[in-house]
Amino acid sequence: MIVGLLHPGEMGASCGAQLRKAGHDVVWASEGRGPGTQRRALDAGLRDVGTVGAMVAEAEVIVSVCPPAAALDVASQAAGFAGLYVDANAIAPATVRGVADRLTPGGATVVDGGIIGPPPDQPGRTRLYLSGPRADEVASWWEGTNVEAGVVGDSLGAASALKASYATWTKASTAMLLAIRAVAAAEGVDDALQAEWARSQPGMDTRSAQARNSAETKGWRWVGEMEEIGDLFAASGQPDGFLRAAAEVYRGYPRLPDA
Amino acid sequence: MIVGLLHPGEMGASCGAQLRKAGHDVVWASEGRGPGTQRRALDAGLRDVGTVGAMVAEAEVIVSVCPPAAALDVASQAAGFAGLYVDANAIAPATVRGVADRLTPGGATVVDGGIIGPPPDQPGRTRLYLSGPRADEVASWWEGTNVEAGVVGDSLGAASALKASYATWTKASTAMLLAIRAVAAAEGVDDALQAEWARSQPGMDTRSAQARNSAETKGWRWVGEMEEIGDLFAASGQPDGFLRAAAEVYRGYPRLPDA
Repeated sequence: MIVGLLHPGEMGASCGAQLRKAGHDVVWASEGRGPGTQRRALDAGLRDVGTVGAMVAEAEVIVSVCPPAAALDVASQAAGFAGLYVDANAIAPATVRGVADRLTPGGATVVDGGIIGPPPDQPGRTRLYLSGPRADEVASWWEGTNVEAGVVGDSLGAASALKASYATWTKASTAMLLAIRAVAAAEGVDDALQAEWARSQPGMDTRSAQARNSAETKGWRWVGEMEEIGDLFAASGQPDGFLRAAAEVYRGYPRLPDA
Repeated sequence: MIVGLLHPGEMGASCGAQLRKAGHDVVWASEGRGPGTQRRALDAGLRDVGTVGAMVAEAEVIVSVCPPAAALDVASQAAGFAGLYVDANAIAPATVRGVADRLTPGGATVVDGGIIGPPPDQPGRTRLYLSGPRADEVASWWEGTNVEAGVVGDSLGAASALKASYATWTKASTAMLLAIRAVAAAEGVDDALQAEWARSQPGMDTRSAQARNSAETKGWRWVGEMEEIGDLFAASGQPDGFLRAAAEVYRGYPRLPDA
């Protein structure tokens, strides 16, 4: 099977390497991508077809793994694709339906995906949740790889909703932690807060130390994800302020150059 | 020493019992209070002086332990008090300064306090952080009791800032958890979320089960606390949306009748 990958970022390249391992011909489109993407694609053994248009013409299936804010643009670029399109991005269910609106008129079938865990360089740590028509078929591609794929529901949006619910805890609470530390420092009580945490909130010292590192390396990508989840919270009648505030925190951590 | 207590709620009555244990004459003002307060004051061995005015005339020190939204009103009622006034409420540093504005013209000295932990019915679980002038003196009152009192800084507001920073993590993240579960349920993925949490987020099952119980019993009181901390975040240049959203969640849990 020829699988198109949009695009080989850290997560995408690692997923592409797993599809290669499963015996698929995985292609990417180098036009407009930076040197970091080029290197990752090469390391993962992906074949360059040059442009998204060439991928649309050649691939049987396309997997989109990109920053949340880019998911709709990426789908628009693939308009006219008539195969199976898996959107595995951290976006709101309504945005997944927007992806389908852009692709189904051209004959594509869209499957919703949500990745939980780190890039699948090791077994047992990464899950790909899938929902919508032909989700079973997409799950079967990953047999024997480091990606544990499973179907979470029939509706386009269920996989994204699961990913969003999960990511709210891990990422919005990390943002909250960074804001708390900033407030405590501004008020001159950061040392006292950490002493109290060490005493009555086991694990907060580790979590607090990791929070800044996560934000510095990945925060730029989480801005869009927090906004997407905020849209989901609002649509579900829950307060979206948790997510808007988290996006604001992560806006303070701009993207580092992709070497 | 004659200590006035405003008012014997769950936390206040338990603190009052500890001050009794330390040998102080602890008085309360029954006027306008409900039967639950009456019962708690009796159980704690407090002496009723009838009105706040009588307390202001008789007490050497007054300790305010009340719902956050009531802290300024309680201070206003004690206007004219010329002794040592400890505001031990979960309020923003700016609100503590508002308490001082109401009381210092009448000759009172205001000390800032923040309580972390449950009502001090047992030893080793409850800390009273204190800051401002004469904080050392207030700390000494609690020697030999279940309340571990300590000074956290010189400024009026440091103790409240510490309490606020701490409570953001424990209470705003609990509110976030309740909102996440509501979103997951609305999207039909609550079971899948819990299964993923059981696998990759140890402790979330317990925390999630406790969240609803905490909200149902104490959430009404936390609305004001979240708003107070939101004011602190805004004043510190951090996004207050975490706290406004948490207040909105807790608004969904009205106060149960105080039997």
